[in-house]
Amino acid sequence: MPMTDLSLAELEKYRPDVVQPADFDSFWSTTIEESRAVGGHVSLAPADTPISELIVEDLTFPGFAGDPVRGWVTRPRTPGALPTVVEFLGYGGGRGLAHEHLAWAASGFVHILMDTRGQGSAWGSGGETADPHGSGGAFPGVMTRGILDPADYYYRRLFTDGVRAVDAARDLPFVDESRIAVTGGSQGGGISLAVAGLRDDLWGVMPDVPFLSDFRRAIAVTPSAPFTEITQYLAVHRNRVGQVLDTLSYFDGVNFARRATAPALFSVALMDTIVMPSTVFAAFNHYAGVDREIEVYPYNNHEGGQGHQWLRQARWLAAR
Amino acid sequence: MPMTDLSLAELEKYRPDVVQPADFDSFWSTTIEESRAVGGHVSLAPADTPISELIVEDLTFPGFAGDPVRGWVTRPRTPGALPTVVEFLGYGGGRGLAHEHLAWAASGFVHILMDTRGQGSAWGSGGETADPHGSGGAFPGVMTRGILDPADYYYRRLFTDGVRAVDAARDLPFVDESRIAVTGGSQGGGISLAVAGLRDDLWGVMPDVPFLSDFRRAIAVTPSAPFTEITQYLAVHRNRVGQVLDTLSYFDGVNFARRATAPALFSVALMDTIVMPSTVFAAFNHYAGVDREIEVYPYNNHEGGQGHQWLRQARWLAAR
Amino acid sequence: MPMTDLSLAELEKYRPDVVQPADFDSFWSTTIEESRAVGGHVSLAPADTPISELIVEDLTFPGFAGDPVRGWVTRPRTPGALPTVVEFLGYGGGRGLAHEHLAWAASGFVHILMDTRGQGSAWGSGGETADPHGSGGAFPGVMTRGILDPADYYYRRLFTDGVRAVDAARDLPFVDESRIAVTGGSQGGGISLAVAGLRDDLWGVMPDVPFLSDFRRAIAVTPSAPFTEITQYLAVHRNRVGQVLDTLSYFDGVNFARRATAPALFSVALMDTIVMPSTVFAAFNHYAGVDREIEVYPYNNHEGGQGHQWLRQARWLAAR
Amino acid sequence: MPMTDLSLAELEKYRPDVVQPADFDSFWSTTIEESRAVGGHVSLAPADTPISELIVEDLTFPGFAGDPVRGWVTRPRTPGALPTVVEFLGYGGGRGLAHEHLAWAASGFVHILMDTRGQGSAWGSGGETADPHGSGGAFPGVMTRGILDPADYYYRRLFTDGVRAVDAARDLPFVDESRIAVTGGSQGGGISLAVAGLRDDLWGVMPDVPFLSDFRRAIAVTPSAPFTEITQYLAVHRNRVGQVLDTLSYFDGVNFARRATAPALFSVALMDTIVMPSTVFAAFNHYAGVDREIEVYPYNNHEGGQGHQWLRQARWLAAR
Amino acid sequence: MPMTDLSLAELEKYRPDVVQPADFDSFWSTTIEESRAVGGHVSLAPADTPISELIVEDLTFPGFAGDPVRGWVTRPRTPGALPTVVEFLGYGGGRGLAHEHLAWAASGFVHILMDTRGQGSAWGSGGETADPHGSGGAFPGVMTRGILDPADYYYRRLFTDGVRAVDAARDLPFVDESRIAVTGGSQGGGISLAVAGLRDDLWGVMPDVPFLSDFRRAIAVTPSAPFTEITQYLAVHRNRVGQVLDTLSYFDGVNFARRATAPALFSVALMDTIVMPSTVFAAFNHYAGVDREIEVYPYNNHEGGQGHQWLRQARWLAAR
Amino acid sequence: MPMTDLSLAELEKYRPDVVQPADFDSFWSTTIEESRAVGGHVSLAPADTPISELIVEDLTFPGFAGDPVRGWVTRPRTPGALPTVVEFLGYGGGRGLAHEHLAWAASGFVHILMDTRGQGSAWGSGGETADPHGSGGAFPGVMTRGILDPADYYYRRLFTDGVRAVDAARDLPFVDESRIAVTGGSQGGGISLAVAGLRDDLWGVMPDVPFLSDFRRAIAVTPSAPFTEITQYLAVHRNRVGQVLDTLSYFDGVNFARRATAPALFSVALMDTIVMPSTVFAAFNHYAGVDREIEVYPYNNHEGGQGHQWLRQARWLAAR
Repeated sequence: MPMTDLSLAELEKYRPDVVQPADFDSFWSTTIEESRAVGGHVSLAPADTPISELIVEDLTFPGFAGDPVRGWVTRPRTPGALPTVVEFLGYGGGRGLAHEHLAWAASGFVHILMDTRGQGSAWGSGGETADPHGSGGAFPGVMTRGILDPADYYYRRLFTDGVRAVDAARDLPFVDESRIAVTGGSQGGGISLAVAGLRDDLWGVMPDVPFLSDFRRAIAVTPSAPFTEITQYLAVHRNRVGQVLDTLSYFDGVNFARRATAPALFSVALMDTIVMPSTVFAAFNHYAGVDREIEVYPYNNHEGGQGHQWLRQARWLAAR
Repeated sequence: MPMTDLSLAELEKYRPDVVQPADFDSFWSTTIEESRAVGGHVSLAPADTPISELIVEDLTFPGFAGDPVRGWVTRPRTPGALPTVVEFLGYGGGRGLAHEHLAWAASGFVHILMDTRGQGSAWGSGGETADPHGSGGAFPGVMTRGILDPADYYYRRLFTDGVRAVDAARDLPFVDESRIAVTGGSQGGGISLAVAGLRDDLWGVMPDVPFLSDFRRAIAVTPSAPFTEITQYLAVHRNRVGQVLDTLSYFDGVNFARRATAPALFSVALMDTIVMPSTVFAAFNHYAGVDREIEVYPYNNHEGGQGHQWLRQARWLAAR
Repeated sequence: MPMTDLSLAELEKYRPDVVQPADFDSFWSTTIEESRAVGGHVSLAPADTPISELIVEDLTFPGFAGDPVRGWVTRPRTPGALPTVVEFLGYGGGRGLAHEHLAWAASGFVHILMDTRGQGSAWGSGGETADPHGSGGAFPGVMTRGILDPADYYYRRLFTDGVRAVDAARDLPFVDESRIAVTGGSQGGGISLAVAGLRDDLWGVMPDVPFLSDFRRAIAVTPSAPFTEITQYLAVHRNRVGQVLDTLSYFDGVNFARRATAPALFSVALMDTIVMPSTVFAAFNHYAGVDREIEVYPYNNHEGGQGHQWLRQARWLAAR
Repeated sequence: MPMTDLSLAELEKYRPDVVQPADFDSFWSTTIEESRAVGGHVSLAPADTPISELIVEDLTFPGFAGDPVRGWVTRPRTPGALPTVVEFLGYGGGRGLAHEHLAWAASGFVHILMDTRGQGSAWGSGGETADPHGSGGAFPGVMTRGILDPADYYYRRLFTDGVRAVDAARDLPFVDESRIAVTGGSQGGGISLAVAGLRDDLWGVMPDVPFLSDFRRAIAVTPSAPFTEITQYLAVHRNRVGQVLDTLSYFDGVNFARRATAPALFSVALMDTIVMPSTVFAAFNHYAGVDREIEVYPYNNHEGGQGHQWLRQARWLAAR
Repeated sequence: MPMTDLSLAELEKYRPDVVQPADFDSFWSTTIEESRAVGGHVSLAPADTPISELIVEDLTFPGFAGDPVRGWVTRPRTPGALPTVVEFLGYGGGRGLAHEHLAWAASGFVHILMDTRGQGSAWGSGGETADPHGSGGAFPGVMTRGILDPADYYYRRLFTDGVRAVDAARDLPFVDESRIAVTGGSQGGGISLAVAGLRDDLWGVMPDVPFLSDFRRAIAVTPSAPFTEITQYLAVHRNRVGQVLDTLSYFDGVNFARRATAPALFSVALMDTIVMPSTVFAAFNHYAGVDREIEVYPYNNHEGGQGHQWLRQARWLAAR
Repeated sequence: MPMTDLSLAELEKYRPDVVQPADFDSFWSTTIEESRAVGGHVSLAPADTPISELIVEDLTFPGFAGDPVRGWVTRPRTPGALPTVVEFLGYGGGRGLAHEHLAWAASGFVHILMDTRGQGSAWGSGGETADPHGSGGAFPGVMTRGILDPADYYYRRLFTDGVRAVDAARDLPFVDESRIAVTGGSQGGGISLAVAGLRDDLWGVMPDVPFLSDFRRAIAVTPSAPFTEITQYLAVHRNRVGQVLDTLSYFDGVNFARRATAPALFSVALMDTIVMPSTVFAAFNHYAGVDREIEVYPYNNHEGGQGHQWLRQARWLAAR
């Protein structure tokens, strides 16, 4: 259980030269516009849950290509428009059950938890959102689905879902549109960063041990899944390296960070074997917004700060 | 990830002949009486937390030998005496932070979470309760602390803390004394069972994948820690087997189950590598109360039902 | 590296009572008919390979829903219709490169190797066949894709591809239609068995350590992936057990074996940790054809007989 | 099984800037004085053992706070005061049985083996010494017991036992007071170093792959237990890092080495995964005595030189 | 760390029907006679060691085919013929250094430690005895060297060395010929058993967790090396199973036990993953001598009783 | 699954100063001459195999000391002298069955596959060649057999077999003597390199992820077997380091590369845990021939390029 990457002093200076595709912005603006153009309806239904002191509702909203995406909306019984946290999930997890995510709402926020398409079956209590798009041959998991073309890549759909989740939030009457923050751990942090790079209306972004940045380094040095799904795919498809790296450049957290300006609170763990600290600092050190902080957990693996980081986030938002 | 024990049909009939010490009842009544005789004060202080929609307080109460034991009390803002759930923790964990356990209170219950003496440092967000009693040589962990004499054994102190936590609950003005249930997962389930065997005033007991039953079989067949702490201790102290088994008979969940009469809802996981299913059924099949049920999770390891089991518990209590 | 299952004597008698859905036959006849109805073209192109002493061609044929499926056709330079072996691949593999599968052709057979849709990226030299159908949330891998409904399950598509591969073989001028055998190791053995249960025109079927039989037992006792993908899915989706087992009954090798009558040569390895020997014997002992043999490898894990089994197969076919 | 740390050339120059508390000397002089002030009796009883060619006796002496500490004294049948080796044990072990440590006595030395309080239950044949002091919450093992305050830390007690073991040796009539050396492997080496830093009357000190130096680096880079007990504690108690490092500075082998002047023979293994070689060189390179040597085992893990190092030690002492 | 085999009650009755080759006795009598016929000289040289209170000498004696085999002779300084223990080593070890095996001599016995030909390089301090005989292809280790023919099998040479070690002992003036016992742990226990089956002049035999019995079961159920060397060999040489089992029947500890009549003290560990308890009981339950005992260690892996078992042995011999 | 060694940029410059024994050339010329002087007969027998479209023959030729070495000769049915590939095997493998190596012959080459003496029993379908020379004590495997003296070292025999295999090839009427290339993966690559350094008549050498170079670094940094056999031997034989390194210098691939001039095509994998990339580059960067290339697989472990590399080799030879 040693440190897994560069020293903290080196990390603080690590600012890799990640490739930016010339059409990065048009690729994403077209993608988002097309999905918005499909339209679709945001719906809320009462959740079947023993929770009585807070309101919990079952959300469905149109994501990429208008595909239905599920979520939970949890909020205080207080009337009026409240500050809101939109949260994205870690790799393999699903939105779970209605009573499992109460802290934000119990602290006075509207909390919107987005389910993850095609995942939700590897840990926890389950998810409910399909990914109705097939793909070419892939290594088990979603990291290499459609990886030979940016248009087909799984994360094009998932990041678009994230952007559309904020669109959906803005439609809800009890959400204060001027105070919407996004957050999430690991993959959820990666989605947060992507959403922050693709919208300019966020109150804050809080990526917790964010995944999905600095792919070129990540796939060369990370010992544990899921970055290794890509490595193992390339170990088979030895003649597809360039093509795969080209696709990934459209999805690199560093390229979203370069475009993101909302106030940001990152976290990183120096003994992380799943998301190498250098890839988190790659995004943090490239982050375009000047109001940015990072909490360093020197002795943690990928669990990072857990409840300690949530407390840090809640206090950081409260101070805004 | 195969099934780890007998078939379900065999488990349902498994009712081992666990040794009962002749002085079991006097051992425990003396133990509890002595600790009650020490007295001590139950105190509540406001928790430093962003939680605003529920009340969270920092509890200190006198446990074994009057030692101060910490906990969190979380409850609705509603006035009046409410039904109450006293919860005990799994092995190695601590009470954590004030915002981490909200579901019971958000469902209308008073929730009292007891910290675990001398633990709270192996996972999660930490604990705050010392175990101010030394011990003879032990294998790392608490399973063999003081194991050569029932009077010195660690779990004598911890189970007494559990009984005293219910005593403390009964002192709180917002607790409905006639509706106090105890629960917990793994070690927390083991404590629940012990408390249920040592008190006759409980509204319900909900041991979730309970640990600490049928020690003789457990230490012979369990592949993973912490039961193996005892096995490894005996692998060194080869001439202490009888003495150790004698001590353990005072702490066997089967012997508490034989004395417990509160309505009970157990759970068990058939792929559990930490708490063998047969040891759970050993306690369940010996449970003295006639109002008892067990939820079987056939494809889970020690995580058991997680949120699904909580939902089952909340509905079970709601129906009483 | 011990034996992983029942003793050989017990295995020889193991004949589990696997559930058969009432509409099993209509489900499959409808499925096959619909895919045949889509039509599509079988095409061959010269392979780009240094192989000169045999003919290697790049095959594309219409599989499930007419989706294009790739393969390699390798055959002697001899003119005329030859006996033919259609081979299916193990889990995660792809058809690889044109020179990697020469033994059947070098022994005088036409060899048709079917690529596996959506796989081909976990080991070896790669595959080229997409699975253009999305799915609900799934555990990484294909074992749980669409598992909540037989109509959506991944193996509905793959088994249909296998049936259609034989249809394609029959269309090729150099194939002797009366002498088409199917074979494959592990998943390839499972596909072989399914095809043997869905057609009545095969010369022989040679399932080598076949996967995908006796699911109910398999998911309860198998220690290693990929059967465990289903177990892990059910560990999350705790309330879907019945639904999942119902789907699997349409795909169980035992149910195909009950309908298969072609001469059969199975193999099984008694130290297999991936495909439990009992699940192989479950299919073998239920096999409807009376001309059936099984080669037992007592000291092998899932690699089974490898070249020794190929030799056994080649001599078995030669003797027909 | 590669090298685990810096190259030998780098190690030879590695001399880290370990923090020294201002009150280090007074902390320790007070600690030792207080325990000496308690007094207590050194007693010897005949050991129950088949050993006949040497004398083996069962030792009890007063350690920290006068707590009784056990040991074995083994010596030649020769009368008169002899050179003496006091040995301390590795982590988790106990003094074992009377016949297990004969080489020093069979070579003409008095050998005093000190049992380790609260340990002796993880490997070998057992120990007999209790640690009658409780502690705050700790990670399993002794590394974090009382770690929030130097006064409570486990190693305060154990190092004091080591100093008192030499006091006890000096009381024995068959010990030549001018020729007392201390030694031990791993934790025993760490105790040796501490004793050497706390006394000025030693004939020699022979720390074999010594544990417990350069804590700050050790907890950041060591892959295996027991240094990781501290890392894992800090992974939970994320807000206690400074406090823990402060405590550890009172116990760092480097700070004892800076004060130790007896002739010294160290050993180190370059493939050690438990005690990183840099932490051994940290102590060696800071060692105050000018008469110091280190034996390097380039291809060994934590077992180091074993019998080869004992031979080296015996010859080194014989040459004095 | 669970029990690895049958229950103790079943073990006590386990008496497998191990095949005995018709020419077992002639095979061995010819083997021993041929090696004795080669002759050769037993020599002793002073050991270069600091040990002064006992006499340690470096032994060379003629083993199989007269090959020189090394050993250590350690004994009290007392004159006269003494009771003697001949000890054989565990798999992979060597005789080590002259000071590493002192307990028997320190208890008044002559101790003769036989080095193991061709081993001595996997753990400990090394060995010095070559195995100057080549072999056919083998799995790494010695278990499959020459396994296709009893005449070539490695253990033919090693067991003959064991018999010749006792011949050598009888030649030494300080050995009491009427009181020679043999012992050893694991492989050393297997050699002890073979020697006991091949001589009728032993005072006692003390096989400690003996290896090399009941091969047919052992290679089918043992999870860990070195029995698995044979399993893995057969996983490759799939067509050599009968030939290999035939060879092994000449070396099975059960067949030696059936012929051994010296008083015997066995030991067995019920959590042994290297030597399955059933294979120890197979030999014990077939042991021909009526004066036989077995010490059972229920919670130990292959380390068995260690010092506790040595004490048991020393007292058992002392009582004769 | 991270990169295991230096960066590619560093590897391209890595050219270590490997020791060359003064008598390296005479050692080898004497060795080869002596074995050639023994003479012996090259024989071919028809293989018992279903392969009909190619000719497969069972080869025996005289290797080191004239010992019989086996192989397979596989070739097109075409008459006349053809270009030839002599292939050597990876560690632990054997020549297997006659149908398992068809690609070279199916591409128009004579293919000679040399069996490996004393190996062939760890994976695959088996080998048939004995190593009739005993050795001193060794770690399991062949890496340390005879390692205390170059004259006794296992690889002296195996490398000589490789040279003699080419001698044998030149004797076969269907081999074009001017077009003989050598190849092999891992150990087979190491043998190729040795043969290339010991002959000057090769058409090409194609070492694929070659093993056995830069021993001093390899045994210090390689995490996985078989280099670790040497490390583990030295962990026991702590006083033999110099002697072992001296022996290894006669067998270091770097010293053969310095003498080899045939056109060369290497491969290397940057995530290789068995053959560190630096040791491959050590040989490649020292290779004496100017016509040399290396194919780099950045995301592969020791499997390297597999079929992709074979294709690269076939095209490289075809272009000559």
